[in-house]
Amino acid sequence: MTKTSAGNFFEDFRLGQTIRHATPRTITGGDVALYTALFGGRFAVQSSAAFAKAIGYPDWPVDDLLVFHIVFGKTVPDVSLNAVANLGYAGMQFLAPVFPGDTISASSDVIGLKENSNRKTGIVYVRTRGVKQDGTTVLEYVRWVMVRKRNEAAPAPGERVPRLPTVVEPKLLGTACPPINVKAYDFALAGSLHRFGDYQVGEKIDHVDGITVEEAEHQTATRLYQNTARIHFDQFSAAQGRFGRRLIYGGHVISLARALSFNGLANAFHIAAINGGRHVAPLFAGATVFAWSEVLAKSEVPGRDDVGALRLRTVATKDRPCADFPDKAGEEYDPSVLLDLDCWALAPRRA
Amino acid sequence: MTKTSAGNFFEDFRLGQTIRHATPRTITGGDVALYTALFGGRFAVQSSAAFAKAIGYPDWPVDDLLVFHIVFGKTVPDVSLNAVANLGYAGMQFLAPVFPGDTISASSDVIGLKENSNRKTGIVYVRTRGVKQDGTTVLEYVRWVMVRKRNEAAPAPGERVPRLPTVVEPKLLGTACPPINVKAYDFALAGSLHRFGDYQVGEKIDHVDGITVEEAEHQTATRLYQNTARIHFDQFSAAQGRFGRRLIYGGHVISLARALSFNGLANAFHIAAINGGRHVAPLFAGATVFAWSEVLAKSEVPGRDDVGALRLRTVATKDRPCADFPDKAGEEYDPSVLLDLDCWALAPRRA
Amino acid sequence: MTKTSAGNFFEDFRLGQTIRHATPRTITGGDVALYTALFGGRFAVQSSAAFAKAIGYPDWPVDDLLVFHIVFGKTVPDVSLNAVANLGYAGMQFLAPVFPGDTISASSDVIGLKENSNRKTGIVYVRTRGVKQDGTTVLEYVRWVMVRKRNEAAPAPGERVPRLPTVVEPKLLGTACPPINVKAYDFALAGSLHRFGDYQVGEKIDHVDGITVEEAEHQTATRLYQNTARIHFDQFSAAQGRFGRRLIYGGHVISLARALSFNGLANAFHIAAINGGRHVAPLFAGATVFAWSEVLAKSEVPGRDDVGALRLRTVATKDRPCADFPDKAGEEYDPSVLLDLDCWALAPRRA
Repeated sequence: MTKTSAGNFFEDFRLGQTIRHATPRTITGGDVALYTALFGGRFAVQSSAAFAKAIGYPDWPVDDLLVFHIVFGKTVPDVSLNAVANLGYAGMQFLAPVFPGDTISASSDVIGLKENSNRKTGIVYVRTRGVKQDGTTVLEYVRWVMVRKRNEAAPAPGERVPRLPTVVEPKLLGTACPPINVKAYDFALAGSLHRFGDYQVGEKIDHVDGITVEEAEHQTATRLYQNTARIHFDQFSAAQGRFGRRLIYGGHVISLARALSFNGLANAFHIAAINGGRHVAPLFAGATVFAWSEVLAKSEVPGRDDVGALRLRTVATKDRPCADFPDKAGEEYDPSVLLDLDCWALAPRRA
Repeated sequence: MTKTSAGNFFEDFRLGQTIRHATPRTITGGDVALYTALFGGRFAVQSSAAFAKAIGYPDWPVDDLLVFHIVFGKTVPDVSLNAVANLGYAGMQFLAPVFPGDTISASSDVIGLKENSNRKTGIVYVRTRGVKQDGTTVLEYVRWVMVRKRNEAAPAPGERVPRLPTVVEPKLLGTACPPINVKAYDFALAGSLHRFGDYQVGEKIDHVDGITVEEAEHQTATRLYQNTARIHFDQFSAAQGRFGRRLIYGGHVISLARALSFNGLANAFHIAAINGGRHVAPLFAGATVFAWSEVLAKSEVPGRDDVGALRLRTVATKDRPCADFPDKAGEEYDPSVLLDLDCWALAPRRA
Repeated sequence: MTKTSAGNFFEDFRLGQTIRHATPRTITGGDVALYTALFGGRFAVQSSAAFAKAIGYPDWPVDDLLVFHIVFGKTVPDVSLNAVANLGYAGMQFLAPVFPGDTISASSDVIGLKENSNRKTGIVYVRTRGVKQDGTTVLEYVRWVMVRKRNEAAPAPGERVPRLPTVVEPKLLGTACPPINVKAYDFALAGSLHRFGDYQVGEKIDHVDGITVEEAEHQTATRLYQNTARIHFDQFSAAQGRFGRRLIYGGHVISLARALSFNGLANAFHIAAINGGRHVAPLFAGATVFAWSEVLAKSEVPGRDDVGALRLRTVATKDRPCADFPDKAGEEYDPSVLLDLDCWALAPRRA
């Protein structure tokens, strides 16, 4: 019997099973600096402890997406080492802020299983939670992936397709954001005068800038998250695969798009929820990523007059500036599109 | 009206205007580690909290140039996003030490404007200050850039060419350096026995080693500073431009030259001022940077017998070792020269 | 007389000489994050302060190999700047844990010298110690290198070949590991249920995954250690040398192999000693590194029932997965082999 883990195959999962993932991870100012160096984000709350504390945070919050990537990374060895495809996310809620010094671990419940008709693969639905050292849940989301069977003849381990929300309800937003003292929110320092009230549903924003991705950069980022999916790191094996080269972690595109979105959304300082996301096309090193966003909806956050929620659709492209908002026609995407992400971000309201 | 900033054009500036720049930035041990990893500096004061405290620093100071890059980066979106050329620096003084945990923000005063005769561009002079969370100014300098006009027909927004110092006066040096206990300065640990008194005016020092720069490295460094100048990051757009490729941030060359200068200047532990600097030629990834320095002058620092000031001219080259000190003849530089920098550095005196 | 150090040549060394190396180095969470980002290690003790403290560490220990690389880096300017070859290590003991905030410096005693018969080079044996700010020795090892003479006519500076241990005795192991509360050791979080007792002498473990190395990555890592060996950084000079390109620091392969070894050795949480190591072949950027390990021996650690010691031989290869354990036949290695490392690692015992 081997001591080496080959990951789980479709028939290894069980409905109702809870998987506790290795490895706990203490996040420090080192991770914050590296994340800045990898993506160049400029949101004031995540860049400045002084700014964050002035507006009401008890301490300097770690970027929401860094927390997500670290939690996601932990699930890879157990959930998606034998994945054929990452199919989607739903109901991702950021539930509590994470501060430097916090240690994050993760577990996943298997909430759905569905064998494919070819009997070679099946879809696994997991609800993953990231938890702090004190037991606080900081992040929760559902993810579904298509996983290979080890043995095609094995019986399906169960069948249930969970009902998933297409959008996180506004009443669930904002628990990771303390009450904000908007009078202390310095809009010049934050980089924009535009508040929640200044955005209109249907408004589209070109984020203008582009960032070219190098192999060393996406590998460094993805290792920072202790994500072990070999397709991101192993050129020897990738050379023999479908693409012939290393595939960049989809989350890298999400973080690039978020960093670019500062230009136009500087005060959308906190991602409160991700409603869903689609990795439309793969990204490889050498390409330049651009992005644009559309305001899909606006909502009050029940019980709060400090912040409002913008539902943003952010589209990232490769080698294609976004002044004309490359999009999809029906189900057919513009060939430049990499990512189509739907999230709720919080922005300060007029005091 | 767009929410996206396209930066200021020449006619947008006003004499006397003060621009408060986004984004405040908390510097941590993470930034210090990354800066070491990117440049490999070995100056003991900036590498060791124990060394710094032993000689009299209240805490471990952040590298002077890291502070400069972070302040400079903040000015880019407001001052130089539409720059055609970075023309120069003057009077750069490091005024107070920065320690891990400090948050830095920046503002700039427009102190000069001069339209060019072609009416397509103009020169903007700004005096920039970097400030800590407690209001202490840590850095101040004048920079001038040639900026495009949005509309050639627009009237010039004013005309004044400020008088700038060619050298920072020695009496202004050293405020960022506490009194040094030279008896506690361990010269073996610091890597050299040579003190202020051992250097001679006119002495030239070849720094011997070379460092090859990769795209991922300069991009990572420049994002660490939240510098958004697209020419450093966006290969898609750069491919259509003057060089066909990404241009490395000029400050990257300054930091490489400073790190290399340890070999020969190990005890010149603090850059107290930068008198001026010229980026003679662009640098692109794949080239190897070398450097040499000349002692232009020496000065006592008024009121201090612990440290003296060396005025150093540091020349960086590409793909050209510096054993024979490649230089300029008249105004014509050796084709290998990248940088010609003039600064004051402090070194301990004989106790 | 030059102020630039050209390093020591063979005739510069003296038996019994102690060399105090520059530059002291404070290690922070920034170094820990970077080390994770560069190698992707997942050992719980070094990844999580909460995990480390729960099992009995007074604080979060810095990865053993990061400490080694930092100590090693300091010796390069004095010991191996003029080395022709790194010949070996022996008796490397990790003597005390290093925590974020500690400052490390290093010194070396010259314990052996042997001129080669060609009189152009000689072998230098040094015993190097890494020491904390409070005087605690954290690491000690012997290393021998072949160093060029400056002047072939110079007399040999002495001759003595020290007797070196082939293996560190088990009674010397474990001083850097506090008593472990095995009941508090969470094996699910640690990523494996396999303890000391589950490994068998002679057992071979394929670590499965591979990591491709980019130039920017190994340069960044090696600069993090302030290692100045030019062959790792200077493509201009390397282009004219034996390989035509930059050679990756041998320690980079050790760290990659260690990180990969998590898959199969997740609970071998601490490297207590390195008995020896051989860099069988050079590594260049673009290659993919794989690894496998063999359990050479097992030992109790005298006086302890919390942990046992596994003597592991770890072999790293390039562009060659290790499912069939590529090895040597007699003295002839498989052409894929990069590294053959022999170390003692500690793992928890059954409580």
